[in-house]
Amino acid sequence: MNAGSQQTVLEQLANKICGFDLQAIPPEAYRLARTAIIDTLGVTIAGASEPCTTLLLDTPGVATAPGQCSLLGMRRQTSALDAAFINGTASHALDYDDFSQPMGGHQSAPLVAPLVALAQERGLSGLALLQSYIVGIEAEIRLARAVNFYHYDKGWHPTATLGVFGAAAASAHLLGLNPAQTTTALAIAASFASGLKANFGTMVKPLHVGQCARNGLLATLMAQAGYDANAAALEHKQGFFNAFNGPGHFNAALIFENWANPLEVLSPTMGLKQFPCCGSAIPAVAMALQLRKEESFAIEDIAKVEIMPHRRRLPHTNNPDPQTPLAAKFSVQYAVCLSLLKGAPKLKDFEGTSHFDPDIRSLMAKTIAREHPDMPDDSPEQFGAEVIITLNSGITLSRRVNSLIGRGGDHPLSADELWEKFSDCAQRSMTPSQVKPLFDALQNLENVKDIRQITALMDPA
Amino acid sequence: MNAGSQQTVLEQLANKICGFDLQAIPPEAYRLARTAIIDTLGVTIAGASEPCTTLLLDTPGVATAPGQCSLLGMRRQTSALDAAFINGTASHALDYDDFSQPMGGHQSAPLVAPLVALAQERGLSGLALLQSYIVGIEAEIRLARAVNFYHYDKGWHPTATLGVFGAAAASAHLLGLNPAQTTTALAIAASFASGLKANFGTMVKPLHVGQCARNGLLATLMAQAGYDANAAALEHKQGFFNAFNGPGHFNAALIFENWANPLEVLSPTMGLKQFPCCGSAIPAVAMALQLRKEESFAIEDIAKVEIMPHRRRLPHTNNPDPQTPLAAKFSVQYAVCLSLLKGAPKLKDFEGTSHFDPDIRSLMAKTIAREHPDMPDDSPEQFGAEVIITLNSGITLSRRVNSLIGRGGDHPLSADELWEKFSDCAQRSMTPSQVKPLFDALQNLENVKDIRQITALMDPA
Repeated sequence: MNAGSQQTVLEQLANKICGFDLQAIPPEAYRLARTAIIDTLGVTIAGASEPCTTLLLDTPGVATAPGQCSLLGMRRQTSALDAAFINGTASHALDYDDFSQPMGGHQSAPLVAPLVALAQERGLSGLALLQSYIVGIEAEIRLARAVNFYHYDKGWHPTATLGVFGAAAASAHLLGLNPAQTTTALAIAASFASGLKANFGTMVKPLHVGQCARNGLLATLMAQAGYDANAAALEHKQGFFNAFNGPGHFNAALIFENWANPLEVLSPTMGLKQFPCCGSAIPAVAMALQLRKEESFAIEDIAKVEIMPHRRRLPHTNNPDPQTPLAAKFSVQYAVCLSLLKGAPKLKDFEGTSHFDPDIRSLMAKTIAREHPDMPDDSPEQFGAEVIITLNSGITLSRRVNSLIGRGGDHPLSADELWEKFSDCAQRSMTPSQVKPLFDALQNLENVKDIRQITALMDPA
Repeated sequence: MNAGSQQTVLEQLANKICGFDLQAIPPEAYRLARTAIIDTLGVTIAGASEPCTTLLLDTPGVATAPGQCSLLGMRRQTSALDAAFINGTASHALDYDDFSQPMGGHQSAPLVAPLVALAQERGLSGLALLQSYIVGIEAEIRLARAVNFYHYDKGWHPTATLGVFGAAAASAHLLGLNPAQTTTALAIAASFASGLKANFGTMVKPLHVGQCARNGLLATLMAQAGYDANAAALEHKQGFFNAFNGPGHFNAALIFENWANPLEVLSPTMGLKQFPCCGSAIPAVAMALQLRKEESFAIEDIAKVEIMPHRRRLPHTNNPDPQTPLAAKFSVQYAVCLSLLKGAPKLKDFEGTSHFDPDIRSLMAKTIAREHPDMPDDSPEQFGAEVIITLNSGITLSRRVNSLIGRGGDHPLSADELWEKFSDCAQRSMTPSQVKPLFDALQNLENVKDIRQITALMDPA
């Protein structure tokens, strides 16, 4: 290792990772980290049965290595590398995992799969897992700040191309690698970084997550085994910054500016998806659910439903007559009417022929969606919506939110809301009687001595 | 699949691969392909004991999957994916494998490891392996022509970033994938492409080859299992061409211009490394060996040795006093004097303290190296050298070559020369009595009904 200002970017980053002040992590950070991990585990279990996951298991030589790491929701175990690959892919299968604005991608999925696999293999604690998650998120999002949004706009899939560093950083922290080994792990990760947005809309999008989760973990295990790599792999003239972004299109100093102060995991720019529809429909859905819960009206008394999202939310969600489950995810009319009638949207509402439900269609016939007249284009708050119900009596009921980007630090999910999403997800692979004990155990993650107490609860019946 | 001019680049390429005219392959192409495969297998066996290979085997979860595919020179078997990873890394461990000028990299290493693993697993023939190798090389080098040398100069390691497509193309051909599946395999490969030149000079350089070999094979196996991907993954605005090269820095039409006419495998711009020293020292070594073989003189009669390579070959090979084995590889004085004294340089001449051999050092003391005065800068022939020996009697003996890039189509290796390199390499892991039967069997590769007849000969004693 070089000293002081002679250190490479990765040497400095490795020092930050290895010397992370764990005592300074506030309870709120633990709470948000735990929520993110629970949420990620839920969507992973839900994604276990998706074709992008099951087809990997049909591929010769994939997940056949012996090991003690669970394929979540599958009653099958393999090596940590293969578990990271399969669970990482499953975690993004439904595009229902959490996301970060500065990353331009999904921050938790690349980390959770390798961390859980390693913790299970080696019998590590819930507290260690939470701390390494928080450290890994810090490294991943800080690197994102150094390269975005040029990186994103160029065609790279940041969840993968930056997630591989997050996976390596988190894994290296969990295994207690020293600064030199951590530097090497990150430098190997730089040579593994891959993933093109051209493959969005195909199974390869979630595959990117499995691949970066596996590769980040592999880089860490190789560094621990004694591999070498170039500590200057980011700033080298033929390194990550220049090859992926190009000269002038990155700012490495942003990695270290006010490092961990505040922690990235506390940032209001990251959040999770509460419902399995398009993120742009979620503010309106949330308002519909408030109306349903807080006002007193019968569905048959409704004369008209008006949905008015921020202008930028509407073009891809304005669909009064969705013909497929996928189209239903992008119909704000369907999502809002469903919510008024039945409560929070569930995975099953976007499967089969649910979107043709006659009661929902009847309400959709009374519904219009249009741009909100009073939500400015140039505001940073672009995730607003207002929903107005006019009853047959002429009475109007309405709810409005100016910005509901995700359910992160500024609009946290309640424990009940988290349970509602988690149980819906987990029941795709597990029986209802298994899900509650698992959720309760996860709520107490900080105090779990051995993560195998958790993974043992995740096998389907 | 789209039809006609509506086809994407990968759909067109897949059609070329699947419809390759195998009947039109001339005997010379088979001979060169066989030589390349034998040469690659030799350097793979030699690389089995290098740290970049052995440390992978020390990494938890690597090469632990069950399977019938040999880790060459290691008496160990695993899955095809893991064998491609380990053997691919080993094949480039000594940087002694063949190379291609238009690729700016090493064309065979990414293909041979997955092809041999697949052929062994499924009991395929030597002829099938040779044909799929020829097809894979065509796809790989044609893609290189579309993106180089901008791609190379930007910092990508083409052996890896293009090799992943070569590995996928060759594997898809060997497994008989249809055009739609082959398109998908190549589109997945686009999202797996990775490898930075910043990591040159470390173990990560050969690792890139193992990674791309494994990933290309994985893409193919996934496509066969039913995965999907975007057929437009190359030309998409956020696809391979734009992300890796950028707008205006590629020409996709070059992939198809005079496709296979002539075959890339016949190109004089690809060749192999005859000796384990720096490629820039090889023309001078070849002239020294000609002098040793064709002239009659005693070493003690030599008064002076003058080495005059092309100007561009000298700065990194002009080292009259190398202090390490690696430095000896980059000392044209050491390589030439070694060749005059002992014949063709061998692997052991660049290990331990061989470079301090007193007889060689004594001759080196009479040796000078300088730029050739009569080899023009602006000629395409930049791999020339002249070696002049002045005897004590005053007689001078000299040999000159104007261009000896590699021992490919234009300066093919003789069977004896190939044997000399192969046996030197293979004896690093195998006993001498094992090596000759293996070489003889490989010389007859076209007629081998089941490649397992070959792989059975490759286990060390």
